[in-house]
Amino acid sequence: MPRRSPAQVAESRAAIVCAAVDQGSRWGLEGVTIGWLADELRMSKSGVVGHFGSKERLQLAVLDTAIAKFVRDVWEPAATHPAGRERLLALVDAWLDSHRRELFPGGCFLTTASVEFDNRPGAVRDAVAAAMARWLTTLEREAQRAIDAGELPPHPDATDVAFELNALAMAANNAFQLHGDTTAFDRARRAMRRTLNER
Amino acid sequence: MPRRSPAQVAESRAAIVCAAVDQGSRWGLEGVTIGWLADELRMSKSGVVGHFGSKERLQLAVLDTAIAKFVRDVWEPAATHPAGRERLLALVDAWLDSHRRELFPGGCFLTTASVEFDNRPGAVRDAVAAAMARWLTTLEREAQRAIDAGELPPHPDATDVAFELNALAMAANNAFQLHGDTTAFDRARRAMRRTLNER
Repeated sequence: MPRRSPAQVAESRAAIVCAAVDQGSRWGLEGVTIGWLADELRMSKSGVVGHFGSKERLQLAVLDTAIAKFVRDVWEPAATHPAGRERLLALVDAWLDSHRRELFPGGCFLTTASVEFDNRPGAVRDAVAAAMARWLTTLEREAQRAIDAGELPPHPDATDVAFELNALAMAANNAFQLHGDTTAFDRARRAMRRTLNER
Repeated sequence: MPRRSPAQVAESRAAIVCAAVDQGSRWGLEGVTIGWLADELRMSKSGVVGHFGSKERLQLAVLDTAIAKFVRDVWEPAATHPAGRERLLALVDAWLDSHRRELFPGGCFLTTASVEFDNRPGAVRDAVAAAMARWLTTLEREAQRAIDAGELPPHPDATDVAFELNALAMAANNAFQLHGDTTAFDRARRAMRRTLNER
């Protein structure tokens, strides 16, 4: 077999990670098995493992890719809006829309991973917790800008605003994944806009 | 070996289910394996299976027991309060308190099960979805009573109130399980009381 070019190796690795992101959103990161990926991509198991070295490194690569996908699809378009409340209002719509059209086929990747790993100590759990903390800090920073600009009242504080927005998005994702209930997105949007003082 | 009495059989079954509820809240219902239970309870695998007939029947028994535990520990004390807003305010405190003291050692049983099974069709998924729907209906009924009594404004409607309370409790459980963040309970309580028009 001819030696593959670096570009071919990178493409092969990316194909594995993309398949694993979809699978991980459905079945959890523990459900992303080397055997399933090998079958799905018609590769040998050693060919899959060779790209990552271990299941844990594969899981970390999958998590990073899922986060990059969410940032590109949800955060970056919202970030083109002026900072503060206007950006948060745009974000709320983009965020709920990503859940409704299933940016990840099994629903919010980080919610699934955080529930799956909260009792599984290790590098994956730490990476999931750090990603969730970064997201909450991002929301909090925008809320603080809105408070500083007088666009939101100082009570509740910016951390409460971030917590509430995250809670409502997670619950809408849960209701849609469990019951196929699309009205949950409208309920979440109403409550999020109320949190953002927009009635 | 002497034949065991019906009471002994029932006790043995209950011991299996109780161990499985704790394990399931930590690792998910799929993590409740016959082998782990047999090791934990020093029984044979066939002894464990014999009580249930299949892993699915065991999972359904575990889910029923977890729900009964939550109802007894959280709902029933709150239900001694007058119907409507007063009952919901008592419920919010009991509910968040159950998450903080880890009524289930791995956190909210139904949240974990709903995220785990939302993409796994079958009897367990149907039972999880039905349990979550019953809980939301219970919250909605109390909210409607509060609205009918003029204790809450008619907007947002009772279904929105139920959705918001559930979202905030789930998010507090998630923050505590993932980050050990106890301030999340205070944030959730503040937001829940705001939803219930109590500032």
